[in-house]
Amino acid sequence: MLEELKKEVYEANMLLPKYGLVTFTWGNVSGVDREKKLFVIKPSGVEYEKLTPEDMVVVDFDGNKVEGRYNPSSDTATHAVLYSQFDDIGGVVHTHSAWATSWAQAGRSIPCYGTTHADYFYGSVPCLRVLTKEEMDEGYEKNTGVLIADYFKDKDHNAVQGVLCKNHGPFCWGKNAEDAVHTAVVLEEVAKMAARTETVNPRVEPTPQHLQDKHYYRKHGENAYYGQR
Amino acid sequence: MLEELKKEVYEANMLLPKYGLVTFTWGNVSGVDREKKLFVIKPSGVEYEKLTPEDMVVVDFDGNKVEGRYNPSSDTATHAVLYSQFDDIGGVVHTHSAWATSWAQAGRSIPCYGTTHADYFYGSVPCLRVLTKEEMDEGYEKNTGVLIADYFKDKDHNAVQGVLCKNHGPFCWGKNAEDAVHTAVVLEEVAKMAARTETVNPRVEPTPQHLQDKHYYRKHGENAYYGQR
Amino acid sequence: MLEELKKEVYEANMLLPKYGLVTFTWGNVSGVDREKKLFVIKPSGVEYEKLTPEDMVVVDFDGNKVEGRYNPSSDTATHAVLYSQFDDIGGVVHTHSAWATSWAQAGRSIPCYGTTHADYFYGSVPCLRVLTKEEMDEGYEKNTGVLIADYFKDKDHNAVQGVLCKNHGPFCWGKNAEDAVHTAVVLEEVAKMAARTETVNPRVEPTPQHLQDKHYYRKHGENAYYGQR
Amino acid sequence: MLEELKKEVYEANMLLPKYGLVTFTWGNVSGVDREKKLFVIKPSGVEYEKLTPEDMVVVDFDGNKVEGRYNPSSDTATHAVLYSQFDDIGGVVHTHSAWATSWAQAGRSIPCYGTTHADYFYGSVPCLRVLTKEEMDEGYEKNTGVLIADYFKDKDHNAVQGVLCKNHGPFCWGKNAEDAVHTAVVLEEVAKMAARTETVNPRVEPTPQHLQDKHYYRKHGENAYYGQR
Repeated sequence: MLEELKKEVYEANMLLPKYGLVTFTWGNVSGVDREKKLFVIKPSGVEYEKLTPEDMVVVDFDGNKVEGRYNPSSDTATHAVLYSQFDDIGGVVHTHSAWATSWAQAGRSIPCYGTTHADYFYGSVPCLRVLTKEEMDEGYEKNTGVLIADYFKDKDHNAVQGVLCKNHGPFCWGKNAEDAVHTAVVLEEVAKMAARTETVNPRVEPTPQHLQDKHYYRKHGENAYYGQR
Repeated sequence: MLEELKKEVYEANMLLPKYGLVTFTWGNVSGVDREKKLFVIKPSGVEYEKLTPEDMVVVDFDGNKVEGRYNPSSDTATHAVLYSQFDDIGGVVHTHSAWATSWAQAGRSIPCYGTTHADYFYGSVPCLRVLTKEEMDEGYEKNTGVLIADYFKDKDHNAVQGVLCKNHGPFCWGKNAEDAVHTAVVLEEVAKMAARTETVNPRVEPTPQHLQDKHYYRKHGENAYYGQR
Repeated sequence: MLEELKKEVYEANMLLPKYGLVTFTWGNVSGVDREKKLFVIKPSGVEYEKLTPEDMVVVDFDGNKVEGRYNPSSDTATHAVLYSQFDDIGGVVHTHSAWATSWAQAGRSIPCYGTTHADYFYGSVPCLRVLTKEEMDEGYEKNTGVLIADYFKDKDHNAVQGVLCKNHGPFCWGKNAEDAVHTAVVLEEVAKMAARTETVNPRVEPTPQHLQDKHYYRKHGENAYYGQR
Repeated sequence: MLEELKKEVYEANMLLPKYGLVTFTWGNVSGVDREKKLFVIKPSGVEYEKLTPEDMVVVDFDGNKVEGRYNPSSDTATHAVLYSQFDDIGGVVHTHSAWATSWAQAGRSIPCYGTTHADYFYGSVPCLRVLTKEEMDEGYEKNTGVLIADYFKDKDHNAVQGVLCKNHGPFCWGKNAEDAVHTAVVLEEVAKMAARTETVNPRVEPTPQHLQDKHYYRKHGENAYYGQR
């Protein structure tokens, strides 16, 4: 079932090693079928070199496996919550990419220091708190998703398509699996440059708002003029 | 039209991923035909892997498309101003290369810390201010070019063939498209080493002027003796 | 003799250049045959490009060569002590990988700053002291092993499968040669991210204990649920 | 003439891009024929991709070209002085490798922070001063060699086979061209780890002398036992 989506999700997973975002089996990408209310995700702990489209696991929005010979990613419950709560997203990705994870470990949101950031994220990429022991005991992966969804309750989750989970790493999403990975690549690049920016100038201020607006709206919304339209 | 120039500009654009200066579609290179007062530039938002010489877009010095099936780069108006104002340059390049962009985001000019820098740039590589909201509303990309050209009004734009635009990234130029990219590669290397230099010695001073002069004039001007002449 | 083990150890050694952990001939991996009380190790100072499985050297637990046309690694005596003292390990690796070695040179244990670390190491990766001149004169490589084994006398050497030797570099171990190298790769990644984390936030605190526990026990012990079981 | 040496020097030059020590045409390697009192060096400003063994230039110890269709490296006079003054060396290399150059730009000698350094260099790698304007006017490249040779007048130039020239970059030497490049690769690695070591621990002290001695003499001198002997 969902052969086409499995192929897409497989290919999006394979972009993680291509772009240098993962070591060993770390990281996982999923993609959703909104009509069937099912999503497809990488199996847990299987090496990228051995992965095939058929290895992808089909899961429902409660995180239960529907089809597949492997266990789904250990982070499946987080993906499930994000698909439930963000009803227009098509793909989710989690990595331990080195620069974004370093910001997550540092417990800091990534300020918008330039147009590379502003082209993709409207404002800071937030770093969310660590779950309490109670929240973890109740359901670590599920409550990670709940924490992310709660943060965006009164915000536009498409204006900032990613977060850092403190002491853990980034989650990103997008209109499909490939798009989510694309955002994860950008986040890693932005995280790298933000760290270097602060090294070069420890008293640096975020990008002036009118420049952030210019770049974000050059690529997003009805007045966008970047690319081929 | 301009088939030969399109090929040159295509090849110069392909040097950007080769030298690791771009992620995804970021960055654009152009080259000029001075007699026809036209220049050729990369299309906006097209992936490097899919690019062909025929995809290059022909534009006039007002930034209007003259030929091509794609929209030209969103930064076309900046290139146009540079060709108008610097009447001896043959190529222009813009990237978000990580180290140069980090200096731009930090809002700092890159001091000349050694002969690698002095071999190519005579003095600091300047970081120019952010445009005002009014300047952006009037024409963001065009006024970026105007800002650069104005900075060089009373300076030699061939002694320092590049600038950083604050919170944005570098623009470089040269006698043709390939040469401009060559300078962009050097700028990235120089930016990287300058940041590391300050990490190793936070109180470092710029290179003594007589050493800067020695290296710059070893490679430039009538008494140059570097290379094959 | 031990042809199968030689092949395993050869392949584990070849993972070092594959994962960028070594320059030139630096680094060595060994694997043990517990029944025969012998281990197989890389020869000293032979280039990886020229290495073959037959070049591997067979050594006993006192560090004496039993078979092989080459001298064994100069660090052989350290491996020998570790096999004697840690009676359930199957592989040992030593490298000068750049980030882990930088922490070793800095004389600092690597704090657990995130789940990437907690997934593999339970608590800090310790940095052990430099041997005294007397200890070195008595047997540098042997006493390096003794120092490591002593440190773990009252600790679980499988909960933290690696150490840093001050002003030197890391040693890691695992259930076989490949597994030890796997841990060395993770240690390098963890060391890199820990350094960057402190750059991004110089006042960062280690990961809350309940999050460390959650991740470590998600992958280790009887309640583990990561991967395919 | 000197066909065998030209081939060796060509191959040693090609190791520079292989090990990531050069950008574009930066860097040059030479090798000497002691009997003929001639050395062979890379031509100035020729791209590595286009280089052939026949392009190598033959030069005498006064730095005069003896044979070759190209001009020799602009740094030829420095090499010439080193061959004259260090009468047992067989190869010389100059690069702008990024980490070593950053230390040179910072104007700091590289302290011995660990055994990776001690395995190759006995004590700090010194950073030498900038030449005066008068010294430069009299002969920049020649006097760079004189400065290096003078520094080693009362020291063993084989115990530390390299220096940093302030605001410029490293020069290394060895028993032949390949060996000199080998040392340049080690210097770059050592420079990288020293910078990171200070980032991880700004108050770090150099390696205790008895550990430096242990490692240096494990690989050098009559009691060496590293490698195959």
